[in-house]
Amino acid sequence: MANVSPMLETHPQPSTYASNVARCSDLCFACVEACLACADACLSEPRVERLTSCIRLNLDCADVCAATGSVVVRIGRVGPQPLQAQLAACAEACRVCAEECRRHAEMHAHCGICAEACEACRRACEEVMVAMRHAGESEASRN
Amino acid sequence: MANVSPMLETHPQPSTYASNVARCSDLCFACVEACLACADACLSEPRVERLTSCIRLNLDCADVCAATGSVVVRIGRVGPQPLQAQLAACAEACRVCAEECRRHAEMHAHCGICAEACEACRRACEEVMVAMRHAGESEASRN
Amino acid sequence: MANVSPMLETHPQPSTYASNVARCSDLCFACVEACLACADACLSEPRVERLTSCIRLNLDCADVCAATGSVVVRIGRVGPQPLQAQLAACAEACRVCAEECRRHAEMHAHCGICAEACEACRRACEEVMVAMRHAGESEASRN
Amino acid sequence: MANVSPMLETHPQPSTYASNVARCSDLCFACVEACLACADACLSEPRVERLTSCIRLNLDCADVCAATGSVVVRIGRVGPQPLQAQLAACAEACRVCAEECRRHAEMHAHCGICAEACEACRRACEEVMVAMRHAGESEASRN
Repeated sequence: MANVSPMLETHPQPSTYASNVARCSDLCFACVEACLACADACLSEPRVERLTSCIRLNLDCADVCAATGSVVVRIGRVGPQPLQAQLAACAEACRVCAEECRRHAEMHAHCGICAEACEACRRACEEVMVAMRHAGESEASRN
Repeated sequence: MANVSPMLETHPQPSTYASNVARCSDLCFACVEACLACADACLSEPRVERLTSCIRLNLDCADVCAATGSVVVRIGRVGPQPLQAQLAACAEACRVCAEECRRHAEMHAHCGICAEACEACRRACEEVMVAMRHAGESEASRN
Repeated sequence: MANVSPMLETHPQPSTYASNVARCSDLCFACVEACLACADACLSEPRVERLTSCIRLNLDCADVCAATGSVVVRIGRVGPQPLQAQLAACAEACRVCAEECRRHAEMHAHCGICAEACEACRRACEEVMVAMRHAGESEASRN
Repeated sequence: MANVSPMLETHPQPSTYASNVARCSDLCFACVEACLACADACLSEPRVERLTSCIRLNLDCADVCAATGSVVVRIGRVGPQPLQAQLAACAEACRVCAEECRRHAEMHAHCGICAEACEACRRACEEVMVAMRHAGESEASRN
């Protein structure tokens, strides 16, 4: 589950927290897949009209995670932005999607699995934000 | 330049600030195009090695704007998140990309045009955030 | 409606069919917005269970058009691929989405508007494919 | 490496070739990560001006794979399109990117790793196309 690690290890400008970045990017794209698959499964459920909030939050979360997983691998970047703000947005998207999916988890197994993917992604985003602060790369530490 | 307006006007659950949303989505995707075109133009410049920060921020901004332009049109959503956090991330991505592009604007006309697209998108994101607050939909106003 | 034209005109390696490219990219992203807005409007319709095929094709078309609009602006590219194959895929995605949307156009105005956006994007993709053949850049003409 | 498998197994309309689909989506997003990381690594190389074709094809491949990985998981879809055409476009994007990356693999390890990710994704796309034909879902078999 560490797809992009070998790529980051061969980058000419290695990051001190490359393992956090790799984990975050991997879990972002795993969350994209889970959310899109959950939205499609919801569309096939007999009571789809009860799942429209879930589908919308799935799609939102997939879009936000795709952007975050793309931005976070750009480790040659100078300065913490826009990564820091995008990680915060992603943690929020994952939090609200997980919350909604969990409400349907007993009825629909795909929602339960999706909630776990969102939760794992949320934690990985927060771990990169912590690692950035330790590395003195957060916006606050620059001022 | 109001591509998506007629779509939002025929939505069964109209938004009170649909015109802000339409403008924001249109300018997000216009910014995606500008940033991707600017990155490609930079790659063709004779001194590309001086433009690597610009290219990276262009790509970041394109990814973040694509997500934001997608999330913002989902006006059937209940609750302000993840839109609110994503708009904030997008305003930040546009701000840093515009700042970098402006540094090269005298030398490279495409950087100047791109900076304007970023700036227009940043303002449109902030206008939706203001409209959400007025409509009582911001996270703060819920607590 | 020619957002990205000024960017392509300031590119250090201008394309002989830049106006076709600009139009195609603009209409691809206009189609992304229309398809995402149509999917969201469909989710709010009282008989959403009858619109699940429409929602799925909207989401497919949005994903494919976003990729195509991004790939087509990279005019510094050498060789016709992967642009040519992606344009063909995009024309197909637009064709099937327009077809499905048109079936619901009388009942749902957003589906009718979306079908037009898909149709305009499909034609723009085909115009770039024709322009590439005239410029001798298609795969066939290379062999 | 089979992230999305459990999601597809709990889908109310299971696909007869869900394992091929899961593998294809996983490898598409692994390829997105590899291509974006390779582009960023190339931008940090001392002779970046020799790698601009590689960077462009990396970005193209990332965009096309992201769309394909999203479209392929929508297994509730009726009819083979636009999946079939998008899989063909993706196989082509992976082929040309792998070809270019391989040319730099001796000099730059990240290009070698990226070429392998592209190659794995290309094969997975072709396997889904074969599975669709066996399931009688290809466009040709319908006529």
